[in-house]
Amino acid sequence: MVEELKEKVFKANLDLVKHGLVIFTWGNVSAIDRGKGLIVIKPSGVSYETMKVSDMVVLDLDGNIMEGNLKPSSDTPTHLVLYKAFPEIGGIVHTHSTYATSWAQAGCDIPNIGTTHADYFSDAIPCTRPMTKEEVEGDYEKETGNVIVERFKELNPVHIPGVLVGNHGPFAWGKNAAEAVYNAVVMEQVAKMAYISYGINPQLTMNKYLITKHFERKHGPNAYYGQK
Amino acid sequence: MVEELKEKVFKANLDLVKHGLVIFTWGNVSAIDRGKGLIVIKPSGVSYETMKVSDMVVLDLDGNIMEGNLKPSSDTPTHLVLYKAFPEIGGIVHTHSTYATSWAQAGCDIPNIGTTHADYFSDAIPCTRPMTKEEVEGDYEKETGNVIVERFKELNPVHIPGVLVGNHGPFAWGKNAAEAVYNAVVMEQVAKMAYISYGINPQLTMNKYLITKHFERKHGPNAYYGQK
Amino acid sequence: MVEELKEKVFKANLDLVKHGLVIFTWGNVSAIDRGKGLIVIKPSGVSYETMKVSDMVVLDLDGNIMEGNLKPSSDTPTHLVLYKAFPEIGGIVHTHSTYATSWAQAGCDIPNIGTTHADYFSDAIPCTRPMTKEEVEGDYEKETGNVIVERFKELNPVHIPGVLVGNHGPFAWGKNAAEAVYNAVVMEQVAKMAYISYGINPQLTMNKYLITKHFERKHGPNAYYGQK
Amino acid sequence: MVEELKEKVFKANLDLVKHGLVIFTWGNVSAIDRGKGLIVIKPSGVSYETMKVSDMVVLDLDGNIMEGNLKPSSDTPTHLVLYKAFPEIGGIVHTHSTYATSWAQAGCDIPNIGTTHADYFSDAIPCTRPMTKEEVEGDYEKETGNVIVERFKELNPVHIPGVLVGNHGPFAWGKNAAEAVYNAVVMEQVAKMAYISYGINPQLTMNKYLITKHFERKHGPNAYYGQK
Repeated sequence: MVEELKEKVFKANLDLVKHGLVIFTWGNVSAIDRGKGLIVIKPSGVSYETMKVSDMVVLDLDGNIMEGNLKPSSDTPTHLVLYKAFPEIGGIVHTHSTYATSWAQAGCDIPNIGTTHADYFSDAIPCTRPMTKEEVEGDYEKETGNVIVERFKELNPVHIPGVLVGNHGPFAWGKNAAEAVYNAVVMEQVAKMAYISYGINPQLTMNKYLITKHFERKHGPNAYYGQK
Repeated sequence: MVEELKEKVFKANLDLVKHGLVIFTWGNVSAIDRGKGLIVIKPSGVSYETMKVSDMVVLDLDGNIMEGNLKPSSDTPTHLVLYKAFPEIGGIVHTHSTYATSWAQAGCDIPNIGTTHADYFSDAIPCTRPMTKEEVEGDYEKETGNVIVERFKELNPVHIPGVLVGNHGPFAWGKNAAEAVYNAVVMEQVAKMAYISYGINPQLTMNKYLITKHFERKHGPNAYYGQK
Repeated sequence: MVEELKEKVFKANLDLVKHGLVIFTWGNVSAIDRGKGLIVIKPSGVSYETMKVSDMVVLDLDGNIMEGNLKPSSDTPTHLVLYKAFPEIGGIVHTHSTYATSWAQAGCDIPNIGTTHADYFSDAIPCTRPMTKEEVEGDYEKETGNVIVERFKELNPVHIPGVLVGNHGPFAWGKNAAEAVYNAVVMEQVAKMAYISYGINPQLTMNKYLITKHFERKHGPNAYYGQK
Repeated sequence: MVEELKEKVFKANLDLVKHGLVIFTWGNVSAIDRGKGLIVIKPSGVSYETMKVSDMVVLDLDGNIMEGNLKPSSDTPTHLVLYKAFPEIGGIVHTHSTYATSWAQAGCDIPNIGTTHADYFSDAIPCTRPMTKEEVEGDYEKETGNVIVERFKELNPVHIPGVLVGNHGPFAWGKNAAEAVYNAVVMEQVAKMAYISYGINPQLTMNKYLITKHFERKHGPNAYYGQK
């Protein structure tokens, strides 16, 4: 059905380990074939060391399993909500990477205080509000997606390709699985540097026009970074 | 006598090195065969690089050496107390892993402030009280076990599979040696993230119902994480 | 034209990865052949894993491409300004290394508080002032070079072989590409240690005569460190 | 003359790299043959990657080179002072390891706040006083040894096998080169954990009797750790 996409999602999941973003089974990557309306995602709780391409699970947008013998990631309903709400995105990553998760546990947005951040995110990396008891005890993983979407009501998910779910951890996304992994690495690195920077100078500031400059150097019609 | 268990304890000890939890000889893993009443534990002060399966020491629950030519870990009396007090556990790990030990040195419980923590521990990771002069100068390693057991008087060791011994370091446990190592890795990772999170926001909070949700997602009758 | 220099610049770029100073394509090294008036620099946005010696771009001091099929690093105008302003230097490195970048984001000079720092830098590692809106929206990368030069108006770039560009990250230099990489590693290491030291004791001090002693032990007419 | 000792000092120097205590040439190990009155030490500024056993320099206690074609470490006079003042020690290590150096830069003793520390040091790891202008501009490396010896006027160098030289970095020692390296690793690890622990709880405490218990568990007539 979507063999090539399964290969890419498989590889993207292993890249999380390579980049030091996950230990054990604490992360998952998915991607979507918008034409076919099919999503490929990591199976739940399967070790990265023994996982095979054929273990990837294929679902439709309603969460029905179309291919695969394993249960999909328990976070699948969150991924489905995001694919429906953000039609521009093609891949999603969830991890418990150390520094991004620490900001999520702190319940704080990661302020945009450097060009490393501004090269990929046009503003702060937002943190969701605490989920209510009803949301947590109801359809929890779906509601997790909903609080992310709520947080992006006035934000552009293409310009801000990631979020912190409060007390939980980061989700990142991109036009495909590889770009979502890339953005997850960026989030972890800027989370670490922001933590250190505020330790040095709690009163630090950054001018908005420098953020805009760097974001537009890499994105949009006037981008001039790289070989394109 | 317990060849298979010796293999598993040997491997679990090496896994401590692989996961970066120990340097030199600063850690030990044991496991118990409840049916036979036999415990297998790492020998004292033996390098992980040269250690062999046959170096594992087999003891009964009173600490009598039943097999092996080396002295058992100097922490053996602590392990024995825990196996007797917590009949549900099958493996124990002790390390001086960096962040968990730092919390132990600080004399503080690690608050449950994120889903990574809540996935494996139903509450804070407790820290024991300071040991008295009599306890330290008496049967020290046995008393170390006793202060852990005292700390769990109103706690469930299956739901909270680890502890910090004040000014010393972490002990973790599980249904077998491998799960004990797993929980030791979890403790180190949540210890690191809690340290960073409080550096970002000393006033952070987490709702109890989110802790419960995550713990029960992985444990108990309604668990739905993984392939089981 | 400058084959040997291309080899050296290529190797110096890979050394950034080896020393853990860059992830993805977040860094670049250049070197200059003063006799021929030619600069060799990394191409823009090319992965270190697939990059070849022949990908290096050769430019004159006005930025005209003399050899190579790829676009040069987007930071090239900054390098050109520095080569013109600092005639003693032969190689330049730019990275987003974690701790140096964190100090840059904090907008603070790295104070000279230890002999590790003083062995290579005769004073604090300076941070540039915030760039104006006009500078950022104008010829941005060239203006980045200009604010560095402005910061060095009363500083000696041979005695202080590096700078932090505010909200951005470190530039380091040296008599050639290899020495520039060396100094970039020094900056990252002293940035990390200064961060930790101030966490331990915000009131720490260092005597100027100890700084001078260490700098002159390794540099200048009375140097006696090493085999020369 | 002392071929076996040269092999051991060579290996001990490489172990500094293996344990992550040094980058570039920022460290040195020496050892002494008390019977022959000969010291073996790393040459100055030689890369660990290309260094050979035959590069080790042999000196007498007055610093006269007895064997070897290279200049000895620039820190040699410090080593000589320590070998003369502390007749019980057989090996010395100097590094700029990250956390120990950060405490040295902070000018603070590392308090003995955990059993990891107490297993090897019977008290705080002391930091020397700032050196005077005369000391620094005089016979600097020898005076560095003198301030260390001054700091140990009322301390036992066998029970406290290491020191922080203020604004500089750690020296560690032991009965031979290998034990000195071991103690240097201990210092770096306890320096890191103490930094983190005080970040968690600035008011932490440790009872003296627990320190004594752990030190004597590994040292002295009643030691019972390990296989001896």
